[in-house]
Amino acid sequence: MQTHAGFLSHPSRVLVTGFAAVILLGVFLLMLPISSASGQPTGFLTALFTATSATCVTGLVVVDTGTYWSTFGHVVIISLIQVGGLGFMTMAVLFWLLMGRRVTLRERLLIQESLNVIDLSGLIRLAKKVLLLTLIIELVVALLLTLRFIPDFGYPTGIWYSLFHAISGFNNAGFDLMGGFRSLTGYVEDPIINFAISIDIILGGIGFTVMADLLQYRKRQRLSLHTKLALLVTAALLLVGTLVIFLLEFHNTLQPLSWSGKLWASWFQSVVPRTAGFNSLDLTALRPATLFFMVILMFIGASPGSTGGGIKTTTFALPGLAVFSLARGKEDAELFGRRIPKEQVYKGLAIILLAVSWVVLATLILDVVEKADFLRILFEVVSALATVGSTAGLTPTLSDTGRIVIIITMFLGRVGPLTVAYALSTRQRRKQQFRYAEERIIIG
Amino acid sequence: MQTHAGFLSHPSRVLVTGFAAVILLGVFLLMLPISSASGQPTGFLTALFTATSATCVTGLVVVDTGTYWSTFGHVVIISLIQVGGLGFMTMAVLFWLLMGRRVTLRERLLIQESLNVIDLSGLIRLAKKVLLLTLIIELVVALLLTLRFIPDFGYPTGIWYSLFHAISGFNNAGFDLMGGFRSLTGYVEDPIINFAISIDIILGGIGFTVMADLLQYRKRQRLSLHTKLALLVTAALLLVGTLVIFLLEFHNTLQPLSWSGKLWASWFQSVVPRTAGFNSLDLTALRPATLFFMVILMFIGASPGSTGGGIKTTTFALPGLAVFSLARGKEDAELFGRRIPKEQVYKGLAIILLAVSWVVLATLILDVVEKADFLRILFEVVSALATVGSTAGLTPTLSDTGRIVIIITMFLGRVGPLTVAYALSTRQRRKQQFRYAEERIIIG
Ligand SMILES: [K+]
Ligand SMILES: [K+]
Repeated sequence: MQTHAGFLSHPSRVLVTGFAAVILLGVFLLMLPISSASGQPTGFLTALFTATSATCVTGLVVVDTGTYWSTFGHVVIISLIQVGGLGFMTMAVLFWLLMGRRVTLRERLLIQESLNVIDLSGLIRLAKKVLLLTLIIELVVALLLTLRFIPDFGYPTGIWYSLFHAISGFNNAGFDLMGGFRSLTGYVEDPIINFAISIDIILGGIGFTVMADLLQYRKRQRLSLHTKLALLVTAALLLVGTLVIFLLEFHNTLQPLSWSGKLWASWFQSVVPRTAGFNSLDLTALRPATLFFMVILMFIGASPGSTGGGIKTTTFALPGLAVFSLARGKEDAELFGRRIPKEQVYKGLAIILLAVSWVVLATLILDVVEKADFLRILFEVVSALATVGSTAGLTPTLSDTGRIVIIITMFLGRVGPLTVAYALSTRQRRKQQFRYAEERIIIG
Repeated sequence: MQTHAGFLSHPSRVLVTGFAAVILLGVFLLMLPISSASGQPTGFLTALFTATSATCVTGLVVVDTGTYWSTFGHVVIISLIQVGGLGFMTMAVLFWLLMGRRVTLRERLLIQESLNVIDLSGLIRLAKKVLLLTLIIELVVALLLTLRFIPDFGYPTGIWYSLFHAISGFNNAGFDLMGGFRSLTGYVEDPIINFAISIDIILGGIGFTVMADLLQYRKRQRLSLHTKLALLVTAALLLVGTLVIFLLEFHNTLQPLSWSGKLWASWFQSVVPRTAGFNSLDLTALRPATLFFMVILMFIGASPGSTGGGIKTTTFALPGLAVFSLARGKEDAELFGRRIPKEQVYKGLAIILLAVSWVVLATLILDVVEKADFLRILFEVVSALATVGSTAGLTPTLSDTGRIVIIITMFLGRVGPLTVAYALSTRQRRKQQFRYAEERIIIG
């Protein structure tokens, strides 16, 4: 264990080490014979893949979760998910506070304002509130799910399934116990499952700070810029997503469904790239256009400081806002009557660039080592990097090299963006000794 | 015709109108029976596609250039190419000068410095020099080509073919007269053709200002930041491109070739995304990984103010430079001991964002209307937008809707980036009345 001072000086190292430690513990437990349904010990690579996928709340699996693992294995997996999901969310908030503590008083105040807390003790109180809210949401969703799962699976199993999927949903993990890699396709038209799970996913993906902000709205009567932006982008993605998927799949996978079923399925498939990893339509049957559209939604992902992944809704909005402001003759990105610091725009840009670079590199490698369609490879890489865990059918057939590429991608996707944001935030405070002369280049 | 004052006040409108006018004249000429080899009149959409492709120096074709058109048709096409390529290059330089004229004296001086000219008359002298150099390069390349084409095609035809391909190469147009959509695959191991055409393409794609800068190097003993950056990125892309294509295709399309043939073919295929559109390997036989790699090279494209397309080498380097500087604790993007203005980074970002958005949109539409592999669609869209004109086999089989999408993409790809850069450059000078308060959001 590191000391408090050690933690403060290298928080991103702690994040990476902590995640790695949790994963290795998971690997150990999952390799035990007691973890598999057959009672046989599980191979290292399969255990590593599953533990990484669970801890990073990705949800990609090389063996079917429901049938391959025992109930003990399922408990290990759902524990990894809860620790990975909630732990990360809490850690992320700590990070932003630490960033705030190292920088100028003014900036620290700004960050505290956006978190709506006055001091650290206030934050801890608030964190407790949010964690409590999290557990309440998971319980309420689980209760809703019992309405369907107890009739379908009987008494103890139905309750266990309800809990498992509520936790998996809120943490945007995407692990399911339905068997045969089926995810929630059996419930494509079911209003209860669709409603409960999609609310679960959205709340899990909206982020700690937004939840805290919303919790205090009645008292403060205002929302932070961050909350407004995150809500706006999330709502826009859900709306556009539902519409586009509805139109693209109308004559394809939606064909056999009733009108309400068509709408539920479009809605659900537009929610899951936020980055839950469940699916109620057979993703392997989607049109290429729909798969590609989902790749983009997944790449954007959820909001910062949440259980979800991706480059994040707010990061996605930044370059667009900056360009839009520039076109209107403003020097800074503006929104809702506030300026966003240039340095944040650059940071967002860095995250997007690194994400794109990794997607390109991993896709190239997999293109070489796997015999598979390009779009399916792209889908799988983005799904892993954004910790979505949806699969267009490639993951279960991966070669060993391919599995290792995806394992690294899942890990980078989970700890990467935050680490990058943090690293850039501490470094750039260094006093600049001198400035070079300016010279323009020609672009476009 | 617009007046001089009109031209000065709306130059980007003139660019768009001028291009459209040249294209329409081309359509009229190509529809005439005299333009086709069969002596039959050509349909509007085919003529529009060909004229747009030639004027925008894209090179995508729906009918085979060599066999479908008559020699009169070929003359029309090569004239459209020369007007579109050189005209655009000259226009681009005028644009940057105009940008300089509208802004502060200091910035104007910076631009003039990067062009190495003191006043407008100096520029016109320099422009004449560059145009002369262009014609000399085209002639020298044509002479080199006669060494192969006269033996292969006899006297008048061999000379005509040499001229046609030299002009088509320098203007990065990619039109060829070989017949059967074969491009230069018949000369894959030929050192003369490989050498002459690749030099032709590289010089055409390096840009007016770089050429001017290099012409004056002996006198001034220094190069502008722009020239250094453009040369550096171009060299890096050529080197990495050759290496990656060599490794990826070694056991595939390079298999039957000799060692020198393998190297020539890798080199040539790494030159053409700069954005010539010729090919010496059968692109439809490339591995998916290679096709995807070429998509990235094509998207980057050539240098600004050249006959080539793409987002441009310098634009591509900007976000990376900015992020790298940020990571090293510097506020501004730096290179070779110079700072690059933030506003330019934003402008580059705008160009990249708009290009990515159009690629996504056009790919989605074509995914819906065409029955074709996703990667081939992506390849074709990027090829059209970056005015490359390489085809992975899709264009000749396009539906009418698909043709229209590609026609619009070619046009946007040619006039878009410059227009965007210009529009942002004039708008952003407006005096800002007030600034909003700053508020941070959370990213990553
Ligand atoms: K997930
Ligand atoms: K071209």
